[in-house]
Amino acid sequence: MTPVAAVAAPSPGSASRQESVAAVIAALSARFGERLSTNASLREQHGNTLTWQANEPPDAVVFPETTAEVVEVVKLCAAHGVPMIPFGTGTSLEGHVNAPFGGVSIDTGRMKAILAVHAEDLDCVIEPGVTRKELNEHLRASGLFFPIDPGADASLGGMAATRASGTNAVRYGTMRENVLALEVVLADGSVVKTGTRAKKSAAGYDLTRLFVGSEGTLGIITQVALRLHGIPEAISAGTCPFPSIKAACDATILTIQTGIPVARIELLDTASVISVNAYSKLTLPEMPLLLVEFHGTEASVKEQAERFGEIAEQLGGGPFTWATQAEERTRLWQARHDAYWAGRAANPGKITFATDVCVPISHLAECVEETLRDLDACGIASGVAGHVGDGNFHVSPFFDPDDHAQRKVIEGFLDRLVKRALALDGTCTGEHGVGEGKMKYLVAEHGEPALEVMRQLKRAIDPHNLMNPGKIVAFSG
Amino acid sequence: MTPVAAVAAPSPGSASRQESVAAVIAALSARFGERLSTNASLREQHGNTLTWQANEPPDAVVFPETTAEVVEVVKLCAAHGVPMIPFGTGTSLEGHVNAPFGGVSIDTGRMKAILAVHAEDLDCVIEPGVTRKELNEHLRASGLFFPIDPGADASLGGMAATRASGTNAVRYGTMRENVLALEVVLADGSVVKTGTRAKKSAAGYDLTRLFVGSEGTLGIITQVALRLHGIPEAISAGTCPFPSIKAACDATILTIQTGIPVARIELLDTASVISVNAYSKLTLPEMPLLLVEFHGTEASVKEQAERFGEIAEQLGGGPFTWATQAEERTRLWQARHDAYWAGRAANPGKITFATDVCVPISHLAECVEETLRDLDACGIASGVAGHVGDGNFHVSPFFDPDDHAQRKVIEGFLDRLVKRALALDGTCTGEHGVGEGKMKYLVAEHGEPALEVMRQLKRAIDPHNLMNPGKIVAFSG
Repeated sequence: MTPVAAVAAPSPGSASRQESVAAVIAALSARFGERLSTNASLREQHGNTLTWQANEPPDAVVFPETTAEVVEVVKLCAAHGVPMIPFGTGTSLEGHVNAPFGGVSIDTGRMKAILAVHAEDLDCVIEPGVTRKELNEHLRASGLFFPIDPGADASLGGMAATRASGTNAVRYGTMRENVLALEVVLADGSVVKTGTRAKKSAAGYDLTRLFVGSEGTLGIITQVALRLHGIPEAISAGTCPFPSIKAACDATILTIQTGIPVARIELLDTASVISVNAYSKLTLPEMPLLLVEFHGTEASVKEQAERFGEIAEQLGGGPFTWATQAEERTRLWQARHDAYWAGRAANPGKITFATDVCVPISHLAECVEETLRDLDACGIASGVAGHVGDGNFHVSPFFDPDDHAQRKVIEGFLDRLVKRALALDGTCTGEHGVGEGKMKYLVAEHGEPALEVMRQLKRAIDPHNLMNPGKIVAFSG
Repeated sequence: MTPVAAVAAPSPGSASRQESVAAVIAALSARFGERLSTNASLREQHGNTLTWQANEPPDAVVFPETTAEVVEVVKLCAAHGVPMIPFGTGTSLEGHVNAPFGGVSIDTGRMKAILAVHAEDLDCVIEPGVTRKELNEHLRASGLFFPIDPGADASLGGMAATRASGTNAVRYGTMRENVLALEVVLADGSVVKTGTRAKKSAAGYDLTRLFVGSEGTLGIITQVALRLHGIPEAISAGTCPFPSIKAACDATILTIQTGIPVARIELLDTASVISVNAYSKLTLPEMPLLLVEFHGTEASVKEQAERFGEIAEQLGGGPFTWATQAEERTRLWQARHDAYWAGRAANPGKITFATDVCVPISHLAECVEETLRDLDACGIASGVAGHVGDGNFHVSPFFDPDDHAQRKVIEGFLDRLVKRALALDGTCTGEHGVGEGKMKYLVAEHGEPALEVMRQLKRAIDPHNLMNPGKIVAFSG
């Protein structure tokens, strides 16, 4: 499963590669002027993300502003066999935008048009560089919102490409469920529309879902049609401590089984609560904690909350504390989103990164508890936070980047974490994606026949392995 | 777009084809005994569905009982280049199981094991021959149910293969959202698992969604993991007449925009109401009618109903009549499902078939009204019924099968219907699928570049064009 360069993507050091790249850069520079850059720090910034993967910068970065310009870039790169790496905001977590074979980073960050908002259809059509916060800002007056919230203010093209989700996927689904259709530029420069704005269709293979989560390895997303939702009339959030991870997970299971349409249900382990309290000046009970949010009418939110409170109490949890004021709620979720920074502050001199796995919810407590024991046994400080309604949780181990032995310990821990999730009928990543970091686990998760289908798809759509090569699946072209 | 036999699927009449088929039948007969049949009426029954497409029977029908047996059948057919057509219950509507190149119908109807129900995870794993009613019967005691309801008691393997949906997709999604993972036997006999039971995953290409809706053209589904839902504590249904199709559609839009989580919202046109009244001995107001259903707690169902009532009144609709008793509700939905038979009774001596299109909901009224005018102009009697929450509606034109001129009129009408939907940014089929009937519309809907991607997918996964050839996309292998 080591990435292998395809015929058309010669190894980074070769003379022919250098000539191809030089030719592409010269042509792009002539065409795009200052919108083509070979500046070293810009390239570095585009060759890495929020990951502990080593930086692998592209040879150049180009900033197209239209689909037609993306097509021009792609045709030029394709003619010279130069790899292309689509780039959104660089907030992905597994080295998705690294350039192991060099090539051109195609930064869609200037494609920011909101092309249409169809309020009656609850959908919109946007360019890929629009971020989720920008979209929600634009939508505010319409009474609509786009719910998917991975924490970072990621570009929506990048979120589609990585099948992003986040805190409220339990209610609203992930990008898989919320992308209606895409426009994608393929490696040969052809422009594909993957669907219409119809809410459902049975007209052939599901190309939309094929490209959602393909991490730029099949083409470059240049337009996204998204489902929108009405801003709920009432929102309430709250926190509830539990005597154990198991009790918190059981409360989550019962909540969902009972049909309470919880909008967010997040778990923080004790260590995370302690650092969040310190960092965000909160006084949350320092025990396993659920943060929950309910959306609906005033009456239904009240009812959902009461029922959740009963379930929590039944499982030894409580007291259940409410945050009905918008400011309180914002503060709470900001604290949740700041868990990363809180952890950093609690572990001075160390850095961290976030990894994730996802298991059927009935196995979640077991998986989290065993993971905490494992962390303890190897002496790694880490926060654990989870989108528990989906069985998805994150681990952020803290380490000294210069301590080689510690890195080895963490690598061993990550392997065991994934094996544990797979043994419990789960996945090596619920939402962060494969990138470079999780490639080695795909055989164990999917089996060789399924992985071979993925390779066949890649070969069929990108036969010269030019689109973000060395990610998800690797093959010699 | 005329279906072209691949190299490996020689034309039905050729001598080499006859030899291959004879060899496969002999081997299957030796292996499966009475579970291999060449009986003419059985073959006819397997070579057609609820469609007006001409019957194209397979050469034989085989009834495997396990995945291993499916693999045996597939390997044998593949070795002789004989087409394979997966068969569920034969309730598809566009000639999905026709055998234009002959071959072996692989009937999964005896694969009926419910392998696991995971109540805590709200999922189950079943064999493909289990029908939706059988599954719901099995689940009843658990307090769970599987919501997708296309009307017919279809097999769940077939429903996955055709991306089925139905009356309550507006709340619960279609098979696309409710299939967690599949086991699929590919044309070379390899067995692919498309995912785990984790509720979400970002671990590579979305193979599950690739096979959902692929109509047996990429492989044979041998296992299905499905999402389940808790049976709602309270259900209430009701009917509400409107002065016009437009008013009914506007009420639907407002209902959804307001965030009322309506479980079903169905439109019947006046002609359908008249025939349903006569057939099911009801006294519904003979005007455009919405049938709605709400799921939730007692309090939330009441609130949803009140809010819907207010919206209906605002748009000139009403009176809104409630059916809170289970028997009344059942009677109402039975009447909706019997609309087909009601129409048959109202149009003696004629037959009908159901076609569907789907448009963004803001264009629904325009699309339905223009369709009704078109039907009127060509003098075709037809019912129109719609899953209006999704912008999806069905037309069932009545005709005399022996009247060639009438068939031509209907063909012209169908072409205009699809063109109308596509011009309104819709799809040629919201839920019935492509089969043979809608193939000719795929270029107009998707454009040539997207259709070429579909062909590439088909070639990559089924290079010899042996899996249900002549459906969705056609190519010369």
